[in-house]
Amino acid sequence: MAFTEEGRRRVVIEGVKPEIDAGRFPIKRTVGESIIVEADMFTDGHDALSGVLQFRKKGAKKWSEVPMEFLVNDRWRGEFTVTELGRYQYTLQAWVDHFKSWARDLVKRVEAEQDISVDLLIGATMVEDAATRAKGRDATKLNDYAKNLRARAEEAVKQALSADLTTLMDRYANRELATTYHRTLEVVVDPERARYSAWYELFPRSTATEPSRHGTFKDVIKRLPYVASLGFDVLYLPPIHPIGQSYRKGKNNNVVSQPGEPGSPWAIGSEEGGHKSIHAELGTVEDFHELVAQARELNIEIALDIAFQASPDHPYVKEHPEWFLSRPDGTIQYAENPPKKYQDIYPFYFETPKWKELWEELKSVFVYWIEQGVRIFRVDNPHTKPFDFWEWLITDIKRDYPETIFLAEAFTRPKVLYQLAKLGFTQSYNYFPWRNTRWELEEFLTELTQTEVQEYLRPSLWPNTPDILTEYLQVGGRPAFMTRLVLAATLGACYGMYGPAFEFGDNQPLAVGKEEYLNSEKYEIKVHDLDRPDSLKDMIARVNHIRRGNPALHFNERIRFHNVDNEQILAYTKTTKDLSNIVLVVVNLDPHYTQSGWVDLPLEELGINLEEPYQVHDLLDDARYIWTGPRNYVELRPHTIPASIFLVRRRVRSERNFDYYQ
Amino acid sequence: MAFTEEGRRRVVIEGVKPEIDAGRFPIKRTVGESIIVEADMFTDGHDALSGVLQFRKKGAKKWSEVPMEFLVNDRWRGEFTVTELGRYQYTLQAWVDHFKSWARDLVKRVEAEQDISVDLLIGATMVEDAATRAKGRDATKLNDYAKNLRARAEEAVKQALSADLTTLMDRYANRELATTYHRTLEVVVDPERARYSAWYELFPRSTATEPSRHGTFKDVIKRLPYVASLGFDVLYLPPIHPIGQSYRKGKNNNVVSQPGEPGSPWAIGSEEGGHKSIHAELGTVEDFHELVAQARELNIEIALDIAFQASPDHPYVKEHPEWFLSRPDGTIQYAENPPKKYQDIYPFYFETPKWKELWEELKSVFVYWIEQGVRIFRVDNPHTKPFDFWEWLITDIKRDYPETIFLAEAFTRPKVLYQLAKLGFTQSYNYFPWRNTRWELEEFLTELTQTEVQEYLRPSLWPNTPDILTEYLQVGGRPAFMTRLVLAATLGACYGMYGPAFEFGDNQPLAVGKEEYLNSEKYEIKVHDLDRPDSLKDMIARVNHIRRGNPALHFNERIRFHNVDNEQILAYTKTTKDLSNIVLVVVNLDPHYTQSGWVDLPLEELGINLEEPYQVHDLLDDARYIWTGPRNYVELRPHTIPASIFLVRRRVRSERNFDYYQ
Repeated sequence: MAFTEEGRRRVVIEGVKPEIDAGRFPIKRTVGESIIVEADMFTDGHDALSGVLQFRKKGAKKWSEVPMEFLVNDRWRGEFTVTELGRYQYTLQAWVDHFKSWARDLVKRVEAEQDISVDLLIGATMVEDAATRAKGRDATKLNDYAKNLRARAEEAVKQALSADLTTLMDRYANRELATTYHRTLEVVVDPERARYSAWYELFPRSTATEPSRHGTFKDVIKRLPYVASLGFDVLYLPPIHPIGQSYRKGKNNNVVSQPGEPGSPWAIGSEEGGHKSIHAELGTVEDFHELVAQARELNIEIALDIAFQASPDHPYVKEHPEWFLSRPDGTIQYAENPPKKYQDIYPFYFETPKWKELWEELKSVFVYWIEQGVRIFRVDNPHTKPFDFWEWLITDIKRDYPETIFLAEAFTRPKVLYQLAKLGFTQSYNYFPWRNTRWELEEFLTELTQTEVQEYLRPSLWPNTPDILTEYLQVGGRPAFMTRLVLAATLGACYGMYGPAFEFGDNQPLAVGKEEYLNSEKYEIKVHDLDRPDSLKDMIARVNHIRRGNPALHFNERIRFHNVDNEQILAYTKTTKDLSNIVLVVVNLDPHYTQSGWVDLPLEELGINLEEPYQVHDLLDDARYIWTGPRNYVELRPHTIPASIFLVRRRVRSERNFDYYQ
Repeated sequence: MAFTEEGRRRVVIEGVKPEIDAGRFPIKRTVGESIIVEADMFTDGHDALSGVLQFRKKGAKKWSEVPMEFLVNDRWRGEFTVTELGRYQYTLQAWVDHFKSWARDLVKRVEAEQDISVDLLIGATMVEDAATRAKGRDATKLNDYAKNLRARAEEAVKQALSADLTTLMDRYANRELATTYHRTLEVVVDPERARYSAWYELFPRSTATEPSRHGTFKDVIKRLPYVASLGFDVLYLPPIHPIGQSYRKGKNNNVVSQPGEPGSPWAIGSEEGGHKSIHAELGTVEDFHELVAQARELNIEIALDIAFQASPDHPYVKEHPEWFLSRPDGTIQYAENPPKKYQDIYPFYFETPKWKELWEELKSVFVYWIEQGVRIFRVDNPHTKPFDFWEWLITDIKRDYPETIFLAEAFTRPKVLYQLAKLGFTQSYNYFPWRNTRWELEEFLTELTQTEVQEYLRPSLWPNTPDILTEYLQVGGRPAFMTRLVLAATLGACYGMYGPAFEFGDNQPLAVGKEEYLNSEKYEIKVHDLDRPDSLKDMIARVNHIRRGNPALHFNERIRFHNVDNEQILAYTKTTKDLSNIVLVVVNLDPHYTQSGWVDLPLEELGINLEEPYQVHDLLDDARYIWTGPRNYVELRPHTIPASIFLVRRRVRSERNFDYYQ
């Protein structure tokens, strides 16, 4: 083994957290969030050590530093805050701190009344050495301290241990033999919506108010106040591109369509254009600009669906046959899940020798829509395109447009879901729709929020999508919709729904045992009466209003589940870091029967005095209860509201300060 | 982000185990052991994939390969065996296997009675492609298969799915776009003694049979049959070098010694020489050679203690003052733990600008003793020398002498202990002496044997050392010695003891609350009557005999603790992988009172039929019991034998085959 360049670096730095796959992938934060970094740092022998956490905006030359604080068992901790969009870097540096060891030992020598004359000289040498690294007043002060030590002045020991000298010696520490952690770790800093957002999905063509007219962007603009009144801040549209004619699907996914049927928006591309074109019946690109602008006025961002696949009529098929796989009979390979055939869809052939051109073209699709004002994309089936492709594409785009958000429609196996999040997707669909029992929900959310996964994956919780009408919603009816609404909106800082199917409680499946909607909007144009008396819109508005007013609900990492002596009731709190906002959610998972039980709360952790009463204020129905102690009774009726979202108000100091008087 | 060289590698390989700190450190095995490698391997989309585990002796050009087998949830597994001392490497390769996907889909198409004519042509192309990579008979066979596919011959489908074609297509798989795991991982392969050994420590100068004569290597040679009769296979000697005169310690670590007192062997170096010299009163280097040779005849390896520190009289001090730290008063810095001073010891100054020369010299100490026939070293206080130094030294030495074993005397904080093991120490002292309660022992051994730690750290369990006489031994007397013996020897495949203090049950501390021995051999010469009637030598011999006869005790990773309804009783099994050897150990941790309780055994896991009786044969006292079912009664008397080491014998098939009839 060859000598290392410098064999005198005695500090080991390892066990750094957060760090994903040995630094292979960045962690994620939003602007204003902090990163707590922990590491094992130790040296041989008994010497003291000091260390710093270093961080910078990627591309900056200079590192900023904060000191690492010792915890226990050779574990240290530091923290920094990210203030700008883009990428940050962080790493660690630590060194054997001879002055710190010396000062620590000096105290013991003095206590043991030993002769310290040589020790003072040793200290003087170290202080003189530090002075050579200092300038101006600091250098003068250090030299003065050294002089006193060298002269063994009466006040020398007191000075040696003073906060002032300690600070100066820290500032000018000898780092010649410092160890720098061998990895530079990265943080992707996203806009707040990446962490906290409420999405609403609708089919633009179904927004007309007259039956059988094709809805347009102008109709969507008229629908914006409704979406805003429900409290959503992202409006997500399925693909808005020209729809292919070949093998066009009919109503209810019929393999044969009747003349005049509109087809699925995911069969992208026709003679009129492809992924950079707009389906003519929706309007013009100017109309689209107007929609984006009008939405933004209402604090709503338009999200587009990017589905990388082509109908046989897509211009790419003629212009770039090399981007598709040819079969020996000269035809192009259509999508398959043998024995099922999807002849209306051509997947791209990512193993083509022309992969670079294909990658560039697909990236340019995102860039095109970014140039049209779009900042949020829902990416269709990302798990059927290569991982390297996505990593390259997202990294590249976010370098130029760091505000961009990519939601992965990754309804796939866990490892694949996680990989897509690691490599760059900002948010991720996930198994939430199929997690229904208390155990399932607790396990699932704990995995997503209490493990390393939370550093890189932001779950977006959807009770329904145009492709997913779960059995729970089919069977549970209106109470099930209310339950899943509350769960999605409070378990997840990011959540979404497909409407107005959701607010109408649509729950007719295509067939028994199927999760598809009967008469799905994917294949036909509809018209909706938004003022239907059975609409859940008021409850949705209320839930989104509660979300907005309670910062505890804007984050996922401080979720905690609580015991209830009834398996049908799920109870959890979310809190802000400083406990100034505590939200307790209690949900009846049984859509059929009233359930009651006793909820156990860890009062001490919530900062609640065990002896004093506290108020729980149900923000859903405005009822207030005074609770005392950790165990309290709840009762939830599915047919009124199957959940409570309690704001927990502690008594602060005195009756007068009981914060629920506020 | 720049394009990668090849964007069409679609397989991701990650989550590889075993892998220490992202491959920064090797794992450890002994000759003949296997390594089970697991990894997450997956690709986008629905394509099938194939993968191999690749391994080779380090330095070899060619990799050997074994196929990875699919487990579940994108997890795969492979296994290889290491057969030679030295370093091995392993990594993984996986690829999208289009032929495997094609064959899988073909089955579904045929079942659905679809037209497969184009599919057969696609298959033919793949088989033809494989043929271009094959030679001779394989190429001919592949071309024949391809021809039949192309001709859509009647037997083509059957052939396409045949084991023969599958094997050929695996052998000549198209790996052009294969992903190779981005790390090459390493295994250090040690001799068997690294994993399984019983150490005995003695002071050579105390092996004379006449009082007050200085023992010699010749006396140690006479002691060998005794050590062998006790069943040990490593005889470890404290430093055998000349002992310094300056500040020589007297009896009981007195700071002043009387003339004629022998001093501590750890105060290394005098005018007679240093680390490469032998204390003259022990004998000559030829005597030492004779000792090594005679020991080896009895299957005992001599282990030397290497303590990198110098007495003030060590030749290094004059010859290489730059290897020590000078104080401002011109003196050399002695060892300290303020306010304590150890003026008889100079530590090496590893921050010296001459560190390279120092490192080389210290390495040459090991090489010197290796050249004298030593293969095993116990390294004194490795945690007070730099980590990089040890990594360099051990790696270098084991490259030339892969059979070398380094035992780290790392009685230090856990992170430091683990780091020393990771960077190369073969075995490690550890906290075993201070783990006494059932909970402590279970926690501790579980951490060492059931986590990643077991991949790189081999614990050596010592009930006592010349520096450690635990409170448990002091207070518990003879039963405590028996208990700790059984625990050390059966919990640890490697263990050791310091004798004859151990077999004599010496338990007088220097003072109350101290862990040092009274009248320690560290500071004076003793003479021992090995035939003392209270000696534990027969029990030690029996325990070592049991160890040798039961391969389950040669490994640590298949240890499992079992519930007993009495906290004073510890119960565990060790088993061989194939369950052909099952050892159940039950120990009374209370050295004062008889304890009894019911032991729960997981019979199914042990391969024992729940309904049938099985025999437990106490190898310590030769008693045999027939047990039935998972719960059985034990009773342990501290003053006879406080433990049972049961060989568990299952009934195999019939009465005749009841293996305890053997």
